[in-house]
Amino acid sequence: MIYITRKETFCAAHKLSRPDWSLEKNLEIFGKCSNPNWHGHNYTLWITVKGEVNPETGFVANLAEVSNIIRVNVLDKVDHRNLDLDVDFMKGKLSSTEVLAMEIWKQLQQPINALGCSLHCVKLQETEKNSVEYFG
Amino acid sequence: MIYITRKETFCAAHKLSRPDWSLEKNLEIFGKCSNPNWHGHNYTLWITVKGEVNPETGFVANLAEVSNIIRVNVLDKVDHRNLDLDVDFMKGKLSSTEVLAMEIWKQLQQPINALGCSLHCVKLQETEKNSVEYFG
Amino acid sequence: MIYITRKETFCAAHKLSRPDWSLEKNLEIFGKCSNPNWHGHNYTLWITVKGEVNPETGFVANLAEVSNIIRVNVLDKVDHRNLDLDVDFMKGKLSSTEVLAMEIWKQLQQPINALGCSLHCVKLQETEKNSVEYFG
Amino acid sequence: MIYITRKETFCAAHKLSRPDWSLEKNLEIFGKCSNPNWHGHNYTLWITVKGEVNPETGFVANLAEVSNIIRVNVLDKVDHRNLDLDVDFMKGKLSSTEVLAMEIWKQLQQPINALGCSLHCVKLQETEKNSVEYFG
Amino acid sequence: MIYITRKETFCAAHKLSRPDWSLEKNLEIFGKCSNPNWHGHNYTLWITVKGEVNPETGFVANLAEVSNIIRVNVLDKVDHRNLDLDVDFMKGKLSSTEVLAMEIWKQLQQPINALGCSLHCVKLQETEKNSVEYFG
Amino acid sequence: MIYITRKETFCAAHKLSRPDWSLEKNLEIFGKCSNPNWHGHNYTLWITVKGEVNPETGFVANLAEVSNIIRVNVLDKVDHRNLDLDVDFMKGKLSSTEVLAMEIWKQLQQPINALGCSLHCVKLQETEKNSVEYFG
Repeated sequence: MIYITRKETFCAAHKLSRPDWSLEKNLEIFGKCSNPNWHGHNYTLWITVKGEVNPETGFVANLAEVSNIIRVNVLDKVDHRNLDLDVDFMKGKLSSTEVLAMEIWKQLQQPINALGCSLHCVKLQETEKNSVEYFG
Repeated sequence: MIYITRKETFCAAHKLSRPDWSLEKNLEIFGKCSNPNWHGHNYTLWITVKGEVNPETGFVANLAEVSNIIRVNVLDKVDHRNLDLDVDFMKGKLSSTEVLAMEIWKQLQQPINALGCSLHCVKLQETEKNSVEYFG
Repeated sequence: MIYITRKETFCAAHKLSRPDWSLEKNLEIFGKCSNPNWHGHNYTLWITVKGEVNPETGFVANLAEVSNIIRVNVLDKVDHRNLDLDVDFMKGKLSSTEVLAMEIWKQLQQPINALGCSLHCVKLQETEKNSVEYFG
Repeated sequence: MIYITRKETFCAAHKLSRPDWSLEKNLEIFGKCSNPNWHGHNYTLWITVKGEVNPETGFVANLAEVSNIIRVNVLDKVDHRNLDLDVDFMKGKLSSTEVLAMEIWKQLQQPINALGCSLHCVKLQETEKNSVEYFG
Repeated sequence: MIYITRKETFCAAHKLSRPDWSLEKNLEIFGKCSNPNWHGHNYTLWITVKGEVNPETGFVANLAEVSNIIRVNVLDKVDHRNLDLDVDFMKGKLSSTEVLAMEIWKQLQQPINALGCSLHCVKLQETEKNSVEYFG
Repeated sequence: MIYITRKETFCAAHKLSRPDWSLEKNLEIFGKCSNPNWHGHNYTLWITVKGEVNPETGFVANLAEVSNIIRVNVLDKVDHRNLDLDVDFMKGKLSSTEVLAMEIWKQLQQPINALGCSLHCVKLQETEKNSVEYFG
């Protein structure tokens, strides 16, 4: 068993704000992340896949295929977008780093498994100081 | 003459889009940066100040004071904000990295000079791949 | 279960030296880290907390609260200090990266648990080449 | 139990290419990594060792000794070399990051264990976007 | 006048070795960089362009066009290649970082100028410790 | 004319404190950097040398020789030392980043010039947020 990781980046706008809460309640709980006119981040995403090494290629999985799966299922939907308004898989959900990582897992699990290996970890970094890891 | 640099970061939403152009024209010129619902970045800002070393302190300028000037004049206005909607000094301007760096220069030049040294460079990085330097 | 990580930094002086050993023995075992007049580092600290996502906030824990706990219990005690002379929780202990990480764990475990989640890992980097992870 | 990690770097040439396949087949499977005249990388290697802290030294293992073991058994053989032509432990093997990480594990396991601790992980990064972890 | 910088990366094999010198002389002058079977690097390239800001777009130059010029004139020729065997503009030249940076300048100067701005600096990093800047 | 840069690192203890000032005055001017029991940093040093490319080697200067000059004249004196107590060229001087960069310039200028090129810049970074550049 060996683990391979692909790093990707994307830029997106979002805010942390519940429509069923007042501006004041949102500000109290979510701080400056609740700014009504949005803010944004350069997100960094590490996708870790585990499996056996194929003796013919020396690969667990072809990283070009892994990268393509991440692009089609995640990056094309979130890069240079508004996470709260533009992304089908985030509709009606709070765009915290935790929730976003868990939803990215759901997007990737089936197509990664179809490569003959399995999704091990989604790591998502919002700023240099804050990141999240989800193992399913 | 010696040069000191302070690095700061902020997170903001923006888009590149002229209201006098159609969606199609904006998309042609600004690409995915024209997304109507905004996107965002973790910006990195390096402020370089030059001057003589004060023999009493060994400092060109006290970096705590430089940092405070950057915070009051720039960071408090742009961090976790929308550059196009929330920032007084960007009103009516295109929020390209070039224009933003030049406007940050205007915010900082006078208060930095009041410390007895002079503003040398505003360097602003939008993504790991793209940055701008402005020397006034 | 999801894992969130907060990165913090601090600067401190220390040395590796046992008072019950001669200078020569300390130099033999600890090398240049035994310099009697101290040396120092920019330490980087990653605190990882695990728990369930609160559906109301989308958070495992509010990172502002996690950051505040790290500041009060660790950073305020070690930043711009001498680990061997100034830090209550390091008194009488060798300030190796291993021992420092384990003592930081003891400072954080109870207040992190009081947030309703649990401390998972203390990662401490002394230089770009050397780091330690402790899981309790 | 505590985990310590040493980071090292090396520069090497290699290609991904099976001599029993045609140029076209190699290009189809390995893409531009199959360039017949080689290409190369700045590899980054993180070696993680686990064990109990020695109360006399505060160390799991002396990182100077760990570093020396990595240098003698790995770096001296691969740095500024061609992984496919010059490295004894890679002879006849595909120099994928996966295979290289597994072979580095074999070089290090016995001498690390002889220090009284145990090898936990070999992490090998080929480019900023691609890395591998092997736990034996 | 404002300066914009685009960062790109490429991976290549090379060696430092003069065919008119003996192996011993090459080893004496170029050290381990003279290994006959090649070695390689992840190169990082920063291209800085200077000009006036176009008031219609807020840009000195469209970075998508700058990036495309770098790709066609440099990256497509050097990435995953052998600098000494595969690259037309390096034929018969020593592939030191200095010479490579100067030759990259020659490839880019005319197409960058055709954008209405001018090439200011080619910065090329061979390893984290070694880099070169050329201003024409 | 081309510019080459060598990056080196060192770890040292220091404090900012004038013996002719009270503890209170030192604290007022130098803040937490005045802690009487010292603190410390991982310093990063970039030495930039300029000159013509030697057509025989493709080098402005052999970086192995540049690195050796930095080691003998600076690193061996400051690494794992106390800048205020252990370093001959800092005796009686305030160890601000500005002063340290200027004194490092004095150590390097003559031996670098003896290589047939000239010292262009000493850049010294104390923390990720603070750095200094000195051009003589």
